[in-house]
Amino acid sequence: MEQADISFRTRKWVRPEDLNANGTLFGGSLLKWIDEEAAIYAIIQLGNRRVVTKYISEINFVSSATQGDLVEMGLAATRFGRTSLSMRAEVRNMITRQTILKIDEIVFVNLGDDGKPTPHGYHAITYERDRIPTEHLDGSR
Amino acid sequence: MEQADISFRTRKWVRPEDLNANGTLFGGSLLKWIDEEAAIYAIIQLGNRRVVTKYISEINFVSSATQGDLVEMGLAATRFGRTSLSMRAEVRNMITRQTILKIDEIVFVNLGDDGKPTPHGYHAITYERDRIPTEHLDGSR
Amino acid sequence: MEQADISFRTRKWVRPEDLNANGTLFGGSLLKWIDEEAAIYAIIQLGNRRVVTKYISEINFVSSATQGDLVEMGLAATRFGRTSLSMRAEVRNMITRQTILKIDEIVFVNLGDDGKPTPHGYHAITYERDRIPTEHLDGSR
Amino acid sequence: MEQADISFRTRKWVRPEDLNANGTLFGGSLLKWIDEEAAIYAIIQLGNRRVVTKYISEINFVSSATQGDLVEMGLAATRFGRTSLSMRAEVRNMITRQTILKIDEIVFVNLGDDGKPTPHGYHAITYERDRIPTEHLDGSR
Amino acid sequence: MEQADISFRTRKWVRPEDLNANGTLFGGSLLKWIDEEAAIYAIIQLGNRRVVTKYISEINFVSSATQGDLVEMGLAATRFGRTSLSMRAEVRNMITRQTILKIDEIVFVNLGDDGKPTPHGYHAITYERDRIPTEHLDGSR
Amino acid sequence: MEQADISFRTRKWVRPEDLNANGTLFGGSLLKWIDEEAAIYAIIQLGNRRVVTKYISEINFVSSATQGDLVEMGLAATRFGRTSLSMRAEVRNMITRQTILKIDEIVFVNLGDDGKPTPHGYHAITYERDRIPTEHLDGSR
Repeated sequence: MEQADISFRTRKWVRPEDLNANGTLFGGSLLKWIDEEAAIYAIIQLGNRRVVTKYISEINFVSSATQGDLVEMGLAATRFGRTSLSMRAEVRNMITRQTILKIDEIVFVNLGDDGKPTPHGYHAITYERDRIPTEHLDGSR
Repeated sequence: MEQADISFRTRKWVRPEDLNANGTLFGGSLLKWIDEEAAIYAIIQLGNRRVVTKYISEINFVSSATQGDLVEMGLAATRFGRTSLSMRAEVRNMITRQTILKIDEIVFVNLGDDGKPTPHGYHAITYERDRIPTEHLDGSR
Repeated sequence: MEQADISFRTRKWVRPEDLNANGTLFGGSLLKWIDEEAAIYAIIQLGNRRVVTKYISEINFVSSATQGDLVEMGLAATRFGRTSLSMRAEVRNMITRQTILKIDEIVFVNLGDDGKPTPHGYHAITYERDRIPTEHLDGSR
Repeated sequence: MEQADISFRTRKWVRPEDLNANGTLFGGSLLKWIDEEAAIYAIIQLGNRRVVTKYISEINFVSSATQGDLVEMGLAATRFGRTSLSMRAEVRNMITRQTILKIDEIVFVNLGDDGKPTPHGYHAITYERDRIPTEHLDGSR
Repeated sequence: MEQADISFRTRKWVRPEDLNANGTLFGGSLLKWIDEEAAIYAIIQLGNRRVVTKYISEINFVSSATQGDLVEMGLAATRFGRTSLSMRAEVRNMITRQTILKIDEIVFVNLGDDGKPTPHGYHAITYERDRIPTEHLDGSR
Repeated sequence: MEQADISFRTRKWVRPEDLNANGTLFGGSLLKWIDEEAAIYAIIQLGNRRVVTKYISEINFVSSATQGDLVEMGLAATRFGRTSLSMRAEVRNMITRQTILKIDEIVFVNLGDDGKPTPHGYHAITYERDRIPTEHLDGSR
């Protein structure tokens, strides 16, 4: 699979509740944000809302952010496994133009209704919305 | 000023904490999300992090979302005033493909260091990042 | 229907988590608060906990609040539709004695167990608690 | 000092984020709500925003609440000490019409700018807003 | 039953979102933390996740904490009733080495699947994990 | 340096707000919890509250947790660098007795008042509280 460009979507405005006791962006908030963004990306690629985080490769916290900074998160699929999806991720500070962190591999697993890994049947990135599920989690439309 | 297309960026995954007592997306969470997204958009257009919500035109809640749905938020600048920026906004449910709400006009005001409205000097949308401030809120780089 | 006075009930103490990056009250928190308060008011008037936000008329943010300020929210019913309730709202800063915002019309819809609009049968404000439902959301007492 | 009636003001709509793992109202959320409400009451009575919780007498959790219930909180001043204010509190479930908990005595202390207890100069309840401070916490108006 | 030593486990790092408007630890956050910790302790002692707060004896707020301080919470069982468990609690500021508050008695009640008090069958503290339930709340393993 | 045993301290009770849209423990909450616990551990070992996350090695999400489960977090220092501290971490589900995740290396950096890495002067784990700072973050006692 060719390397896809990272597409930056969700942005955050760093507010007081996101700060650690030093007044810089709390690492935990950052990790929470990227995990949620990866879940959304996986759902769109796999056409299934039952996806869970399986693996995150090493994370270097290169720079940080302070109150009032804007942060953006980006992802790109890197590999479609039989029941999994691998992505790489980057978080950037829009004010300093610096990378906050990069993650080479985040793996999500595609689950069936029984909560067990199940094949998703996809092999390549979609840039459309053709795979997004059309029913709610409870099966209703 | 010509009408710009709405650009959808930030996405949310509806989690239990976003639900009202009926199990559908809490209107208050929705309003909080769109206000934050508008603030981010205004900062990027006005090159100033000291921006505040001044006005929101009427809001029709056309459809809703339930747990596990994906919601996306979009904005487009509609008018650059001397000290203000007007935007229109749309929130969509990616699962049902339905509009959740549209807002014709959200106005943010550009503030100076003294917290008073101050001219921003811009007249048109930027699609680049050329106006994003390069210093932190406290003036440091 | 005669115009009823706004009755101020719920109060908030502005804490660090409610501030935007400028150190003033985050517009999103404010909107979340007023939507929750309107929901509570509607439940008491309509005797039904299955109510959802349908419409909010334009909002002028007249003044703001800072950390440690007290904010109070008030509502009054303005019209009982067949399946809806219209209210007007005001949020005030108790410290500055200034109005923070006024909303001329917030409309909530009365839903049945099937999640569809259903007639509520009321035509006037109650100042008593005679309509408050006596069973939990799941039907138990 | 005569016993004043409890005045019920702030109301809460029990949402999923307020539940404990049993699906009933989380005791911790309840205690957080009553402490915030007592702080607001103390600020209005003492005309000072620098107030802190000093003492809470025993608490009986008589009944509970579930998702979608409405909860209201009430307070009444019971004693004005030299640097303190004593209040009694009650939390009620508006749906079941039952008391959730009663607290005979919550004591707040009036602090000076140095963070130390300081006399407040009041001896009786006000039912007006004549004591509410007119400046922000940082001293500005 | 002999008096058991308090065992300190969960620690908190006081972040901006935990502060009241004075910049010291919000009493409400503190009460929320200790209630959650007591619930966890009760579950481990009673081998049942259906436990609820029934009673809290008087609380003296002896000292406080500020942003960046470390706070630790400790509990010890003091009495095993037929359907209840009594504990005493202490919260300490690890930075100032001072007690923040002590609570002589927190009582939790052991509930059955019907939500009613039910005997737990224990008479003494366990320092092991022998009583921890082995199934999820929904009965699955 | 010899391998120290992991010491489990902070425990969490999985509540509705910690769940993802599938009803299992949200990966983001988990990462936020472990980052906060690591910060606390680092502060106690380095005697400095100005510590920030620098690096997290790969993370395998081995098992999960559901509502009402108890989760415990443990850490052990593995290496004292000149300006850094390395730790390993484990998160366990107390109900299923299973490991939720293990992290071989979390590195925190010791910062000076200028926000730059600064030597901490320690070479081995303390099991005492001898290094905990005795002043607040603002330098007061």
